[in-house]
Amino acid sequence: MNFPSRTTSNEIELGTTLQPKFGPDGLIPCITQDVATGEVLMFAFMNAESLGHTLKTKKATYWSRSRNKLWVKGEESGNVQWVKSLQTDCDQDVLLIKVEQTGSANASCHNGYKSCFYRQLTDLDAAATGASFALTYTAERLFDPATVYKKK
Amino acid sequence: MNFPSRTTSNEIELGTTLQPKFGPDGLIPCITQDVATGEVLMFAFMNAESLGHTLKTKKATYWSRSRNKLWVKGEESGNVQWVKSLQTDCDQDVLLIKVEQTGSANASCHNGYKSCFYRQLTDLDAAATGASFALTYTAERLFDPATVYKKK
Repeated sequence: MNFPSRTTSNEIELGTTLQPKFGPDGLIPCITQDVATGEVLMFAFMNAESLGHTLKTKKATYWSRSRNKLWVKGEESGNVQWVKSLQTDCDQDVLLIKVEQTGSANASCHNGYKSCFYRQLTDLDAAATGASFALTYTAERLFDPATVYKKK
Repeated sequence: MNFPSRTTSNEIELGTTLQPKFGPDGLIPCITQDVATGEVLMFAFMNAESLGHTLKTKKATYWSRSRNKLWVKGEESGNVQWVKSLQTDCDQDVLLIKVEQTGSANASCHNGYKSCFYRQLTDLDAAATGASFALTYTAERLFDPATVYKKK
């Protein structure tokens, strides 16, 4: 799918045409949010092909940098993300999609959590002094990766 | 501020110590969310210095790639972001901060909107066929950039 070319800064920032900026590596960052709760589920990248596939199928489709291939979210785990809206930021170099996460486990993360952001800095004040960078788990594991993925 | 070194994949993904991955350019992406509403306000980058400054001051501090300098959010506009929590993702190469956005305009975006994500793809079905990539504004402008910033 061909997306509109980047035009002027004014058109990109204040216009009403999607003109996504794919970086030198062909990728644009994408933030994925739960449409119902607003929880940030994950952060990944898309290239033009995966953005096109996302729009055509409504299934969130990323570009896997580690596997160097199109990554239809949930194709292996069954936890498909159905896209309900797509937004872009002021300079159109980031995408934000809101999705309905489906599948038996309702988990986005390969480690078995709903969101990849399942840990939080325990104590901001301790971190402020460099005394502790401990993380606390803020979510429960919804599936055991070993039973869902055949190989690590 | 020195952050803990990256150790094993298992420790990074399932451990309880912050081990942020600063990329080859020294940067880590950061998603900023409104702590009260969950709205994604912006997306920017931090380096170790800006993450340290963020933790020390509780003011969200990014690294401006365009100006190549530390960027204390709100230092010019007055719209400071007070950090309430900091999360990281499974492989600790992204940060997610939840902030209380302050300032008279309560706006994150230099274009005068609360969030940088003030536009949304109008019609997912039209985009799916490549028929239209029109965007619709989903937010109201809260300030006029010309009156807040002295220079563009």
